[in-house]
Amino acid sequence: MPKVSQKADHMPSSPIRKLVPFAEKAKKDGRKIFHLNIGQPDIETPEVMLNAIKNSNIKVIEYSHSAGIESYRIKLAAYYQKFNMPVNLEDIIITTGGSEAIQIAMNTCFNAGDEIIIPEPFYANYNGFSCAADLVVKPIRSFIETGFALPPIEEFEKMITPKTKGIMICNPGNPTGYLYTKDELEALKKLILKYDLFLLSDEVYREFCYDGKPYTSVMHLSGIENNVILLDSISKRYSACGARIGALISKNKDVMTAAMKFAQARLSPPTFGQIGAEAALETPQSYFDAVTKEYTARRNFVIEALNKMENVFCPKPSGAFYCIARLPIDNSDKFCQWLLESFNHNGATVMLAPATGFYSTPGAGINEVRIAYVLNLADLKGAMICLDEALKVYPGRIIEAVAKNSN
Amino acid sequence: MPKVSQKADHMPSSPIRKLVPFAEKAKKDGRKIFHLNIGQPDIETPEVMLNAIKNSNIKVIEYSHSAGIESYRIKLAAYYQKFNMPVNLEDIIITTGGSEAIQIAMNTCFNAGDEIIIPEPFYANYNGFSCAADLVVKPIRSFIETGFALPPIEEFEKMITPKTKGIMICNPGNPTGYLYTKDELEALKKLILKYDLFLLSDEVYREFCYDGKPYTSVMHLSGIENNVILLDSISKRYSACGARIGALISKNKDVMTAAMKFAQARLSPPTFGQIGAEAALETPQSYFDAVTKEYTARRNFVIEALNKMENVFCPKPSGAFYCIARLPIDNSDKFCQWLLESFNHNGATVMLAPATGFYSTPGAGINEVRIAYVLNLADLKGAMICLDEALKVYPGRIIEAVAKNSN
Repeated sequence: MPKVSQKADHMPSSPIRKLVPFAEKAKKDGRKIFHLNIGQPDIETPEVMLNAIKNSNIKVIEYSHSAGIESYRIKLAAYYQKFNMPVNLEDIIITTGGSEAIQIAMNTCFNAGDEIIIPEPFYANYNGFSCAADLVVKPIRSFIETGFALPPIEEFEKMITPKTKGIMICNPGNPTGYLYTKDELEALKKLILKYDLFLLSDEVYREFCYDGKPYTSVMHLSGIENNVILLDSISKRYSACGARIGALISKNKDVMTAAMKFAQARLSPPTFGQIGAEAALETPQSYFDAVTKEYTARRNFVIEALNKMENVFCPKPSGAFYCIARLPIDNSDKFCQWLLESFNHNGATVMLAPATGFYSTPGAGINEVRIAYVLNLADLKGAMICLDEALKVYPGRIIEAVAKNSN
Repeated sequence: MPKVSQKADHMPSSPIRKLVPFAEKAKKDGRKIFHLNIGQPDIETPEVMLNAIKNSNIKVIEYSHSAGIESYRIKLAAYYQKFNMPVNLEDIIITTGGSEAIQIAMNTCFNAGDEIIIPEPFYANYNGFSCAADLVVKPIRSFIETGFALPPIEEFEKMITPKTKGIMICNPGNPTGYLYTKDELEALKKLILKYDLFLLSDEVYREFCYDGKPYTSVMHLSGIENNVILLDSISKRYSACGARIGALISKNKDVMTAAMKFAQARLSPPTFGQIGAEAALETPQSYFDAVTKEYTARRNFVIEALNKMENVFCPKPSGAFYCIARLPIDNSDKFCQWLLESFNHNGATVMLAPATGFYSTPGAGINEVRIAYVLNLADLKGAMICLDEALKVYPGRIIEAVAKNSN
């Protein structure tokens, strides 16, 4: 029997999916689960998007252009221009979700064995995509005490070796919810220029910035146009994760020529997703206003509830719909499993994502969890009550002094 | 300015897309182009599939299960069982087109630098996917004189080195239309067992077998269940290339566990494509009967027309909707470009795919073209007249003796 590849052996399992069998068991046993573990929003997809798909008049579901349907790309460029991002038709390749944008960007920019620096905690699948592309991830730690601000540039510089070819960021951040400031990005820009690195920026949570704080894109930075690759997706923007439509964007002509070869090999992104995505660009501002209002309320409620719990700390994020909380627990993997296996408050429990899965450094995040506030306020209230009660009785609860230092 | 990866440099451009600018110019100049260059069928997608998408009652376009919607996978297993293929629910991962099935299979089975033997001519994108996975393709030549039958097993055996980890086939074949016999596959099986290799089989043209000839799948071969990976797609089956729905299928549990990790990293295949694909399984047999009848008529017409042309030879394929013809020309790349740039018969010309793009061996296929008979009979008639006239006046026409030996 032939053996699978070393790459396949090293490929990480999804840190959340490991808990799924325990969640299924809990459901079978009749317990309600508050799902705060996954970034699948409950917000309805804009009607204009759904209607475009339902009313499409296709007789043959043909391949689209490998870079995506041209009329969609033209309108998408205009969308970015509204954010003052200098994106034109020729700078865009439509991809199958943000996932494929990351895969193509990595194949385009990096050779096997190259190093990429990523501030951690980071979106867990960056590990998987790096593994598939034979890249070495060099994590650089950001800390809960600063709300997961960009680590000092000197720390980045210490990590740079001759094999370092790029830096990857997520802004607004998954799993941290942190929104990078213009100053942070300007500092990063200097480093990018000094070492002539690629800067990959995943900005799929652009529409989710709160408290009137400004969103700064890497596309706003002048002078590093040839270094920057923007990775995008409509999944969160329009609550359309299953449409599988993303985009790879760069002003670097060599990057676009190379990326196009990878795009051509896989033929085209999904046609119906593109039809929907093109129509979704007509989504009225009132939709986003309502969504922002809803998420702001959810965030405010969750952050307040968490920080009221004994020995729990959670910084207030300014973007996305996640937060990372530090809990008085011995081990977040154990705790999240225990919640599903053994905890029951009025017939319910809560499912969280252990933060360990978002760190590359072993042991980091051991007393942290990621919470996605993708439920309505009533359910969030139930979830927070559950969590509070759970922390009171969790056998692995540890005392305050330890909790504060175990990080 | 940072440099793109070596992989990106080596990544082949699509051999057909190179001709696109010339085609666009010809169209602008008012010439009609008969497109025989691409495997995009003109056949209508089954109504049952289109209606399922139009009538879907989704409010939130959610991620599906990473392995695909379970109800679809259950029905898909039953579909394979109708072909006597022992495929169960747990053997299936739904992918974004056959393209992603190939990518995941390669990542799952092969390390960087591993060798994979592929009979040539082969589907050009196998080169691209191999390049992306840092695999080395070892082509083994099949010949037009035998209709592109499987090369003798001794020839395969000669190519095997310690780095050889797999063999990949396409059956029925793109670009050859050749349908492997049971004897050919049984011979291949012995080799697979002897060297314990992976056997990747792309069988997306299963529904396109003619003259009552039997289709033998690698899933029909007993004793190599752990070696076999089936790569599939609904693109051609239901004329639904843009749905981007395929499948990776194996009885090897380690392969499936590893493949699932790659599948989870990219989250899920497209939701609307899956909704359509599930409904498409209800497509009545009359649809396939009509399609087979249509393609048989087209094939018969094209093959007869080609072989009537002076010094043209085209074997009669038994599957898919392609054939490869040998023409009395100096260079198929030049000829195909010349057709678009300089040829005009009653305001029309024909676009073909140079066969050179389907060979990995330099120089092979230089006097061959691939013809996709994806147009209706009236257009095919126009196309064949065009081609016949073009061959009479092409400046690079060469005499019979040379044509027969230049291969």
